[in-house]
Amino acid sequence: MAQTSFTLHAQDGQARTGVISTPRGEIRTPAFMPVGTAATVKGMMPESVRETGADILLGNTYHLMLRPGAERIDRLGGLHKFMNWERPILTDSGGFQVMSLSDLRKLTEEGVTFKSHIDGSKHHLTPERSMEIQKLLGSDIVMAFDECPALPADRKRIADSMRLSMRWAQRSRDSFGDRPGHMLFGIMQGGLEQDLREESATALIDIGFDGYAVGGLAVGEGQEAMFGCLDYAPGFLPEDKPRYLMGVGKPDDIVGAVKRGIDMMDCVLPSRSGRTGQAWTRRGQINIKNARHAEDPRPLDENCTCPACRNYSRAYLHHVFKSNEMIAGMLLTWHNLHYFQQIMQEMRDAIAAGTFDAWEAEFHAQRAQGDIEPL
Amino acid sequence: MAQTSFTLHAQDGQARTGVISTPRGEIRTPAFMPVGTAATVKGMMPESVRETGADILLGNTYHLMLRPGAERIDRLGGLHKFMNWERPILTDSGGFQVMSLSDLRKLTEEGVTFKSHIDGSKHHLTPERSMEIQKLLGSDIVMAFDECPALPADRKRIADSMRLSMRWAQRSRDSFGDRPGHMLFGIMQGGLEQDLREESATALIDIGFDGYAVGGLAVGEGQEAMFGCLDYAPGFLPEDKPRYLMGVGKPDDIVGAVKRGIDMMDCVLPSRSGRTGQAWTRRGQINIKNARHAEDPRPLDENCTCPACRNYSRAYLHHVFKSNEMIAGMLLTWHNLHYFQQIMQEMRDAIAAGTFDAWEAEFHAQRAQGDIEPL
Repeated sequence: MAQTSFTLHAQDGQARTGVISTPRGEIRTPAFMPVGTAATVKGMMPESVRETGADILLGNTYHLMLRPGAERIDRLGGLHKFMNWERPILTDSGGFQVMSLSDLRKLTEEGVTFKSHIDGSKHHLTPERSMEIQKLLGSDIVMAFDECPALPADRKRIADSMRLSMRWAQRSRDSFGDRPGHMLFGIMQGGLEQDLREESATALIDIGFDGYAVGGLAVGEGQEAMFGCLDYAPGFLPEDKPRYLMGVGKPDDIVGAVKRGIDMMDCVLPSRSGRTGQAWTRRGQINIKNARHAEDPRPLDENCTCPACRNYSRAYLHHVFKSNEMIAGMLLTWHNLHYFQQIMQEMRDAIAAGTFDAWEAEFHAQRAQGDIEPL
Repeated sequence: MAQTSFTLHAQDGQARTGVISTPRGEIRTPAFMPVGTAATVKGMMPESVRETGADILLGNTYHLMLRPGAERIDRLGGLHKFMNWERPILTDSGGFQVMSLSDLRKLTEEGVTFKSHIDGSKHHLTPERSMEIQKLLGSDIVMAFDECPALPADRKRIADSMRLSMRWAQRSRDSFGDRPGHMLFGIMQGGLEQDLREESATALIDIGFDGYAVGGLAVGEGQEAMFGCLDYAPGFLPEDKPRYLMGVGKPDDIVGAVKRGIDMMDCVLPSRSGRTGQAWTRRGQINIKNARHAEDPRPLDENCTCPACRNYSRAYLHHVFKSNEMIAGMLLTWHNLHYFQQIMQEMRDAIAAGTFDAWEAEFHAQRAQGDIEPL
């Protein structure tokens, strides 16, 4: 049966580039994973997501277990077939969304009971059930079930939560079993406490996973604190396994994370921003709803090769946004996903060439210029 | 300078097939024109609209004059460039939408004054201004400015309105002038009164147009009354010019109109239905929101080659509709436009082969079967 592997091709400082191989295809790292929460990357056809350069999508266990249901997706042939994406899919464990989205949570050693934010129905999620759901979905990269406190939180809360997550990590590992062709990732917790991060990493390594996530960041602590943690946390993890920073982020967050040794990331930002009229370019962020774009014949970014920039003016994008037309979110999402994937490709190339520092300096210099002047 | 032409290739009964040639491309007739109201066919990329087989789009003068404005579109290079559709565009005159959408209309011999439904701003539209706007947009097929009463209306109202429209048709013709490569169509009115239809047609032919629309139908009179009018109205028009039935319709309306000698149609139905979860197939209409589709692995139509039917189950379409995902409207709109264009292609082929009656019988037989049985 086909196996999985992670091969590092080059390292430049702490930044690494390589390939995760799975039976469903290769994932070039550092990798950015667009989020397909409810079995769709909002506003995009999956063929278009692939065109932007994505090797892998993220699916949300919490959303899919509630609607349409994991057993139903299994009966329909699995998530890949269901959503017409035959390449790798990583699914989260559901833990984070239960805590952030659902009502009336009750947390015990066993797991968490909660009410659906969709219809109020009652559900139970444990490490064992999370593994089962992710198997039913057919996920290629399965995440251990964890619990994560919002920051700031006191040290005791963070330590207790981390140790619970480590016990759940062991139960996840036991429940996952041996599934050739599929990977199970553990999730490091510990907030911004270096010793707790190390304790968590040690516990996970003792259990043994195919990859390791840095969890519990991008939850309100700010970029400086996040980078502070990333200055040491990846170093606690095995060099020969992928390191995944969950829920990150803005372009400069991504670049800073890669610089610090992160191999994978995911975020709703490019698609969510696209639907609200925010475009990300080399020169920073653009609010296309701003009246200054109303008669501007120039593209969002004249150097960008995405369909939104090749074929449409800012004036058009402004018009369709003001008119609440679907194509507005479709085009800006496409642009944003394209831009995020372009950053990843450029970083992979720079790391391979040993020029990451120069690339990073140019990245920041272009952003410092700000958007082009109005005509 | 490039000219336009209409060439009839075959006739079968009253049904005709041919080609309208314009500098921006050929329009195979009978033609169905998707509606791109606000410079976008809602939920579709223009490349995808083309993939469904559309040769020409319709743009709405009323909407575009209000937002983003005809002068602005002109400064940005015209509607084709603005919306990334380089093939032919037909624009309506704005008259119908002023009557159906705007507030506080005041109708005089000169034209109509109205308030925008978007921001309440005051606007004036006359035959001369309508011609100017359609020229600014860069429309390939320009419609004469007309007025149209909702049916039922009394004979005097219909006659007065038709005669006003005929005076406006003359002013439209005078104002349009000589624009090689662009066509001006007159619009026949007269409601369901045969003698008024004939009087209107005679007046238009005296003025002389590049094509003729049958206006004032599909405004509430029902299919039987519409077909009753189409049994004679096209016969009042020149055989060697395209005949355009405005705002039609459902698949069986379209087939019945082609049977009666209509060459062109437009309707928002495929895109509007798509956004509300209605799919049109050979076997009739499907409401994808219905719970019976929730676990159905079959496509909408196993014989359909559109992306929605090739790549997705009814269960997926049901799920994304229930989840309010954009891809739901995107996929169903694509399917519907594909199906409408497929009907047109099949009718063109059948007319050319002299087998239109047999094709029509099969069309109705398939619809009579109804949708496939639930699993």
